[in-house]
Amino acid sequence: MLPTDPFSFGVSLPGGIPTRYDNHITRRLSSMPGQFADQPAYAAMLAQEDVLLYEVYEIVRPHVAGELLHGTSIVHPGQVGKEYFMTKGHFHAELETAEVYYCLQGAGMMVMETPEGEWSVQELRPGRVLYVPPRWAHRSVNTSHDQDLITLFVYPGHAGHDYGTIEQQGFRKLVVERDGRPQVVDNPGWRPPAARS
Amino acid sequence: MLPTDPFSFGVSLPGGIPTRYDNHITRRLSSMPGQFADQPAYAAMLAQEDVLLYEVYEIVRPHVAGELLHGTSIVHPGQVGKEYFMTKGHFHAELETAEVYYCLQGAGMMVMETPEGEWSVQELRPGRVLYVPPRWAHRSVNTSHDQDLITLFVYPGHAGHDYGTIEQQGFRKLVVERDGRPQVVDNPGWRPPAARS
Repeated sequence: MLPTDPFSFGVSLPGGIPTRYDNHITRRLSSMPGQFADQPAYAAMLAQEDVLLYEVYEIVRPHVAGELLHGTSIVHPGQVGKEYFMTKGHFHAELETAEVYYCLQGAGMMVMETPEGEWSVQELRPGRVLYVPPRWAHRSVNTSHDQDLITLFVYPGHAGHDYGTIEQQGFRKLVVERDGRPQVVDNPGWRPPAARS
Repeated sequence: MLPTDPFSFGVSLPGGIPTRYDNHITRRLSSMPGQFADQPAYAAMLAQEDVLLYEVYEIVRPHVAGELLHGTSIVHPGQVGKEYFMTKGHFHAELETAEVYYCLQGAGMMVMETPEGEWSVQELRPGRVLYVPPRWAHRSVNTSHDQDLITLFVYPGHAGHDYGTIEQQGFRKLVVERDGRPQVVDNPGWRPPAARS
């Protein structure tokens, strides 16, 4: 039974674990085959250890338009080759739904794109609010060497997730380290999106 | 024209002013007649100065279900008699819509109630997330003596505001100072809600 009464919870840092949550989702290297550009580096890393890339603590609410799903996202620091650790990234299944992020800790970037192929990359750092408008797929990337990237997220209850499209086509842009700094580059493996309504 | 591309902005503290916003709303003492319990104290204060009680910086988005309206709320410290400065408080016009608050600074309480007369008061302090479920009217109260209460808020684009119901009936509970501490007490002026659908 989901609560119908108001509730509140804390998010302690540096952990980013809410004092109250319903689901704890963990994503390891093995859950993202084909998503990192440097496939030999991916295979070599996976042969050594199935590293934890990111975690999500979810507050579950009914999946209806007036509710707001929310929680914290924690992307750990690290690289696969020159590419930073990142989330799978997804479109919302109900494409016309937005998302708000508030960055609590760390340094990173949100990589975004529409089904029509427009793209945008926005910086994430503590105290910044990011608006992902309806129609924009989004992936968070941790560009720090030593700190978790921790964000608070809020999205409409009816949004749902479409991971499949990104798994197939990737994002147009990658975030890689060059000369010790994050740089946004074209993804050579990107495939043009299939026609979407 | 509202942007269709992603955007991000900072919220610097202690001001709470976003580096980007569409509307700046200010509410002074004169905009809340009949809302504070101690009416002689209210009249005396207003005769001296029409004090600024709170401010809202709004990011405007289309008023449809998939969008998320958001911004910052800044309640200044102060009291009318023994009652702390607070926002007008409201139901959402579309009653079945929620709201998420994240407290950035200060100390306060969110006073909430349903049309059926259930009530809840939750503490606001930095690092705490508050979920206001659908159907719950909400008012934020600054219980600090010297600090602004600053929150980040997110609610569905189709929520709308119903201020009239609270202006007529008030909230069931007041937050007043007793022995130097905030205390939640019954509102002697509260009127039972009219039947609502």
